[in-house]
Amino acid sequence: MKWPQSVRIVDVTPRDGLQDADGALTSEQKIRLCKALYDAGVRSVEITAFVSPKWVPLMKDAETVATALRDCHETIALVPNEKGFDRALATGVDAVTFVVSASPMHQQENLRMPLADSLQQFRRIAERNDTGGSAAGADVGRVRLRGAISCAFGSPFSDETIVPAHVADIAEQLVETGAVELGLADTVGVGTPQVVYETLCRVKARVGEGVPIVLHLHDRYELGLGNITAALMAGVTTFETALGGLGGCPFVPDAPGNLDTEKVVCWMHRMGIETGIDEEGLAQTRTWLLDALRASVARA
Amino acid sequence: MKWPQSVRIVDVTPRDGLQDADGALTSEQKIRLCKALYDAGVRSVEITAFVSPKWVPLMKDAETVATALRDCHETIALVPNEKGFDRALATGVDAVTFVVSASPMHQQENLRMPLADSLQQFRRIAERNDTGGSAAGADVGRVRLRGAISCAFGSPFSDETIVPAHVADIAEQLVETGAVELGLADTVGVGTPQVVYETLCRVKARVGEGVPIVLHLHDRYELGLGNITAALMAGVTTFETALGGLGGCPFVPDAPGNLDTEKVVCWMHRMGIETGIDEEGLAQTRTWLLDALRASVARA
Repeated sequence: MKWPQSVRIVDVTPRDGLQDADGALTSEQKIRLCKALYDAGVRSVEITAFVSPKWVPLMKDAETVATALRDCHETIALVPNEKGFDRALATGVDAVTFVVSASPMHQQENLRMPLADSLQQFRRIAERNDTGGSAAGADVGRVRLRGAISCAFGSPFSDETIVPAHVADIAEQLVETGAVELGLADTVGVGTPQVVYETLCRVKARVGEGVPIVLHLHDRYELGLGNITAALMAGVTTFETALGGLGGCPFVPDAPGNLDTEKVVCWMHRMGIETGIDEEGLAQTRTWLLDALRASVARA
Repeated sequence: MKWPQSVRIVDVTPRDGLQDADGALTSEQKIRLCKALYDAGVRSVEITAFVSPKWVPLMKDAETVATALRDCHETIALVPNEKGFDRALATGVDAVTFVVSASPMHQQENLRMPLADSLQQFRRIAERNDTGGSAAGADVGRVRLRGAISCAFGSPFSDETIVPAHVADIAEQLVETGAVELGLADTVGVGTPQVVYETLCRVKARVGEGVPIVLHLHDRYELGLGNITAALMAGVTTFETALGGLGGCPFVPDAPGNLDTEKVVCWMHRMGIETGIDEEGLAQTRTWLLDALRASVARA
């Protein structure tokens, strides 16, 4: 068993954490949040999502936020389609997370197109990224392409079953198309150590050792540490988390929050696994963030 | 990876949970506690310890408790030496846990003899158990011999290091001598998933598949679920826990409580692993127990 000496935490508070929160931050506050996360030692932050303001109004300032953080590293933006990719590319983000879903029903709710269409869009994105061009033809350089599979460990809908082999199929297609990092998300928060381990091992075997797998957990049943342990044992060393356990997909009924960044960092440190992150810096940022959200609710 | 369908919970509240508690139960209350645990579906309860009343006065009624529970199954008693074994045998318990320590300093504090002497006593106990006789020659039948190693994952003393190979050596001697079940205890509560997994695998490889390994966790750093997950992945399916997270060795400075029975049962059920235990029955027993302990403190 090869345990890691260190792991990479990708904080997704500014994107997943805020997209469905009670209260809203101003663009300036979002930028401040991201900078505080980088200052606390988080190396990768999912800073925003280039999604339709019609569906996720809280992300309508994606350009403002991303442009302001152009000099930070690593900035990641979620994109659900080609249009989102173009918008992201224009702002100079370092990486984009292209998201599809292992649940056909969630795929339709969240992406508003079937999986095959999403994968087709990802192929066009990857081609354009390879040639360094945007749709408009302007050369704005390459971004790191991340592929992510929502609902990889369970469906939000009781009449749907997620089959690990299907998740592995999607993973393989994303990687063959050009994803250099592969996220598996427990969007519904129903993962157990068994399912997490089996799915991660199966996906890892399919996509090979060269493609880092990222685990994105929501925590409905407080099995987070068990899932993290199982993931470490499956060789996964990148975890997506959010401050205060905020977050949840707006298109999942009763969606549980993300796994809490502070908890995960604390667990890792107690296990003797380095994160490069300052726990005190995280705590201060969380306090400030929750205060800001509360103040926004009070104003509204 | 073979995940278990079910696990066995050995509740050690009446022994480890009470030995260092604030407040004391009467013998009648201890008996009621044990019966309530069996009623809730716990199949094995460590009902008492046959230790010197001088060192652990709260266990001075071991005979009363054990005799009253003679018809319950499975009753387990901890014994630190031959004298304790003889006392246990006379009461008709189903199993005894003979305890040694992987920490030489803790061995001396807790058992008041070096490891070699403890192991010598265990050999004599095993011989007598084989021939079905007590020291006095009366035929009181066999008991199930359990061997247990305290401090298997860390020492209470900063100038001592616990080496997994040493733990495996002791385990092998206990099993060769006659232990049919082998407990590894994180007496200090410093285990991490890495250390727990590596130690369990090493011990398992040494003692073979035929001897069930029992994990007894204390939880200083709230890594319990991670340690449990690592243990399940190492093939361990028996766990010792205590209600309310009570307990701790009187001879370990600032000893943390046991892993909480309710928590562990809840985790297992959420993972889809059966325990045969009724969560509501546990909760009622815990409420009653904590009330009884508080009342005892108030009286004192």
